[in-house]
Amino acid sequence: MALKAHTTPDFDDLAEAGRMDVVCRSISNAFWLSDSFRKDVLFHVALSGPKDPPKIISFYGPELPVEMKPDEKSIGEYIKKALKIGMRLKLNEEADVVPGIKISKKAFETLIKEKAESRKLIYLHQRGDDIRKSGVTEDCTFVLGDFIGLPKNTESLLERFDAEKISVGPKELFASHCITLVHDELDRRA
Amino acid sequence: MALKAHTTPDFDDLAEAGRMDVVCRSISNAFWLSDSFRKDVLFHVALSGPKDPPKIISFYGPELPVEMKPDEKSIGEYIKKALKIGMRLKLNEEADVVPGIKISKKAFETLIKEKAESRKLIYLHQRGDDIRKSGVTEDCTFVLGDFIGLPKNTESLLERFDAEKISVGPKELFASHCITLVHDELDRRA
Repeated sequence: MALKAHTTPDFDDLAEAGRMDVVCRSISNAFWLSDSFRKDVLFHVALSGPKDPPKIISFYGPELPVEMKPDEKSIGEYIKKALKIGMRLKLNEEADVVPGIKISKKAFETLIKEKAESRKLIYLHQRGDDIRKSGVTEDCTFVLGDFIGLPKNTESLLERFDAEKISVGPKELFASHCITLVHDELDRRA
Repeated sequence: MALKAHTTPDFDDLAEAGRMDVVCRSISNAFWLSDSFRKDVLFHVALSGPKDPPKIISFYGPELPVEMKPDEKSIGEYIKKALKIGMRLKLNEEADVVPGIKISKKAFETLIKEKAESRKLIYLHQRGDDIRKSGVTEDCTFVLGDFIGLPKNTESLLERFDAEKISVGPKELFASHCITLVHDELDRRA
């Protein structure tokens, strides 16, 4: 969930587009390894900044384009491409961007409801239980806020769906760091 | 240690400059937290790519410019600035780039020898002992290779200095991921 990230493609500097750089690093860490690629990951980013919220861009590991690289600039270009296509969507419509990437005009809360139907939700939060002592598995859906956290009503929704609050470490980390730490924990359990 | 990273500032695309994007993400993860900054970190990156190797750029946590941001583009601009100044250096000379950043024309092996005089060396390697069961502390110096690994003679030098081989997880990760995982382990022990 990126509360300030821009929802129209009118930016050149990722850091100035509601911290789109953090979104890009999160996607990078979700999928890329040094020598390979995590094909089993499905990543949705909900953008709620100006000028046309809400938007959800979805990245499907098995189909992502091989031209996409793990650097911020490369990922940022696919996000801009998605947002350009997203400008013509009506509420709850979805469109293909390239194979493996879709964009929809959908609220984060709608996505959460859909996921909760089939998956255990894990809400990554600094005041959660330690991931190392938790029962998280790769079948869970992990929900991350951004530097502002999640809005109160979204937190209430997560509570209603019995989302487990899990912490990855003692410091206030970027979402991108949390993803690396979750992957490491799951890699160790595999 | 970035074996292919360019040593002259003639690049615009970080990913094309010998994977300078990975160097930038490593620096980002070394210093920045979501709500603060790790002032106690000292980070050296040794660049050995074209066209004027060797180069070492050093980042001193307590003095880094506040204008420097954790996105690849911002960090990349400081690296280019450093490499521009570095072009006029003779072997083993050092120059200031901005407060908190220095560049030297020095071999990675020379840096290792200097560090070994006062610090326990930890060589992060996939076939090392698990960091979670190790005795690493924040007083150690952590040595990271890149996607190619370290040259055999550098590995021999590390062995001679009793560097401990430590692994952060079961997968082949980017240096930038390893840094996040080391920080998390040290944060938990603090």
